[in-house]
Amino acid sequence: MKAIAVKQGENRPVLVDKPRPTPEPGQALVRTLSVGVDGTDHEVITGGHGGCPEGEDHLVLGHEAVGVVEDPNGTRFEAGDVVAPTVRRPPNGENEYFERGEPDMAPEGMYHERGILGAHGFMAEYFVSEEEFLVDVPASLTDLGFLVEPISIAEKAVELAYASRSSFTWEPEAGAVLGNGSLGLLTLALLRDKLGYERLYCLGRRDRPDPTVDIIEELGATYVDSRKTPADEMPEAFEPMDFVFEATGYAKHAFESVHALAPNGVAALLGVPGPWEFEIDGGSLHNELVMQNKALVGSVNSHVSHFESAVDTLAELPPWFTEALVTNVYGLDDFASAFDDDDTTIKTAVQFSTYEERR
Amino acid sequence: MKAIAVKQGENRPVLVDKPRPTPEPGQALVRTLSVGVDGTDHEVITGGHGGCPEGEDHLVLGHEAVGVVEDPNGTRFEAGDVVAPTVRRPPNGENEYFERGEPDMAPEGMYHERGILGAHGFMAEYFVSEEEFLVDVPASLTDLGFLVEPISIAEKAVELAYASRSSFTWEPEAGAVLGNGSLGLLTLALLRDKLGYERLYCLGRRDRPDPTVDIIEELGATYVDSRKTPADEMPEAFEPMDFVFEATGYAKHAFESVHALAPNGVAALLGVPGPWEFEIDGGSLHNELVMQNKALVGSVNSHVSHFESAVDTLAELPPWFTEALVTNVYGLDDFASAFDDDDTTIKTAVQFSTYEERR
Repeated sequence: MKAIAVKQGENRPVLVDKPRPTPEPGQALVRTLSVGVDGTDHEVITGGHGGCPEGEDHLVLGHEAVGVVEDPNGTRFEAGDVVAPTVRRPPNGENEYFERGEPDMAPEGMYHERGILGAHGFMAEYFVSEEEFLVDVPASLTDLGFLVEPISIAEKAVELAYASRSSFTWEPEAGAVLGNGSLGLLTLALLRDKLGYERLYCLGRRDRPDPTVDIIEELGATYVDSRKTPADEMPEAFEPMDFVFEATGYAKHAFESVHALAPNGVAALLGVPGPWEFEIDGGSLHNELVMQNKALVGSVNSHVSHFESAVDTLAELPPWFTEALVTNVYGLDDFASAFDDDDTTIKTAVQFSTYEERR
Repeated sequence: MKAIAVKQGENRPVLVDKPRPTPEPGQALVRTLSVGVDGTDHEVITGGHGGCPEGEDHLVLGHEAVGVVEDPNGTRFEAGDVVAPTVRRPPNGENEYFERGEPDMAPEGMYHERGILGAHGFMAEYFVSEEEFLVDVPASLTDLGFLVEPISIAEKAVELAYASRSSFTWEPEAGAVLGNGSLGLLTLALLRDKLGYERLYCLGRRDRPDPTVDIIEELGATYVDSRKTPADEMPEAFEPMDFVFEATGYAKHAFESVHALAPNGVAALLGVPGPWEFEIDGGSLHNELVMQNKALVGSVNSHVSHFESAVDTLAELPPWFTEALVTNVYGLDDFASAFDDDDTTIKTAVQFSTYEERR
């Protein structure tokens, strides 16, 4: 079967041939429908993040997948069920984090990530997975099923951040998403449609006309050009934010978020920057965190219940939004285009097969 | 009656004469037993924090009080009940934070703090308070009742920090308190006796022999000399910490805490530093917060339920500990000594009357 991989020491995705996998007991065979591309894929391709399975010279890419069960192989699924796989897998047998269904909380060394770190991904015509890592997707969401994984990332971060405000009365009204990439835009829609924010802001650094700015405004949110209004000037320019969702990987945003917040606010951090030394007014940041009961909460990955929430969220997203968000879905013959990244690209995916076709 | 106050523009506590207050409806008259002194008092005295009531030229000090109800004045109390007053009061009638019993979450401008900001404190022979701000203290804890307020500060911070870890399975075993002042030591005892930490560390910068180091070790905790082992080197020198409680006001600790934490750990920040610019590796801190699901949670003040928890905690503290912690309780004739601060002083209080005496 065909798969899209990056070879060790190279920094571009290539088509490779691999044997079709055979499910072990407890695993189902899934025919891949489509797989989304995100910033993590670009980091994996350029070598900034992740790594090949042990003893192998390539990594099959892809961690945002939707597929159809081809061979249930004794699992709870039926052939034809549409599923989205979670990303983390135990590296050497089980460990406590996987046993309790919280692999997203496993520390380094206690997980592999399919398509990212130590385990092949889903950008292949078929994949196998333990049934516990497959989440049901309604047939009506088949075409958009590759959005379940990125939405689940937002669901997990929101859950973690909201938990931090659960010991007191907290009714957030103003929210800001830092970053107008696909994760930022999906989160903006989630905050609007599921969490009921009254006023939303989305920070980017694009000139108009720009398709992401159009989506931001169509969602009823305010576009904030960070070149004119840095994150920590949002309170003065607009209003203090009860919730900030950082999806840029720009390290200064983690610290600027403190001042961007309203009293009792929380910032969820999701970016994964490399080392970068810079000066901050650490005294004032510390003071503000304390005197205003503010919090910074880092969040990575997601688990099954976040995927399930993401399926519900995806079902509620307005069609115009997902149509505008998914700028292109490419076939295998043009897979390389799915990895292009320019200002007209928001979200792309590679399609491996359609639901209807049977091989 | 006599009261201890700081006059505007001066920076030492003085004895003043004030009329004995008369309780309004809903208020009880309380005869003051003793009032603790802490770092906030020193900041108020030196003008670094807080301020006088509007239109007045002095502030009666004291926010860590225990007293005995002298005139219940129609409240739920009986004469002779021992009580500890909470600190925040609504500045101009009620507001939503006070209405829901969460004044500790009120933003700047929506609270006064007795003895600190805009309202006279409890260092007077008598004070009045609305009954909702008075918490019952068992007669057996009368002598130590001035510790209820500082313990409540730790209870609130622990509640807030633990809430941030409530969306997943979190079983902390290793905890570090940054700061060997009285709040740090009280928290260390709280973590050991109430929260069941298996391994505890307390960071300070004192040479042995030192009474706080003795208490730390008597509690079974490890003393960490920050001059040899900075907070962010604790994982390498000892172990990563599931929970860090910062009680120093040293701004670099807020940021060093990130690396001091184990994966999924949380640091509660309580210090209130002034502006201070310094360089950090913000990229790595941001990365670590995210990839390891870490959190920083600021916490200030406390409300009635935290005082109630603090009463329970205080009842469980071993007698040797409170005896070692409270280095001196001074009478009114020697009140100034309670504000002395040297390496032999841990916790002091001023005694205004004894439970037995009646005037």
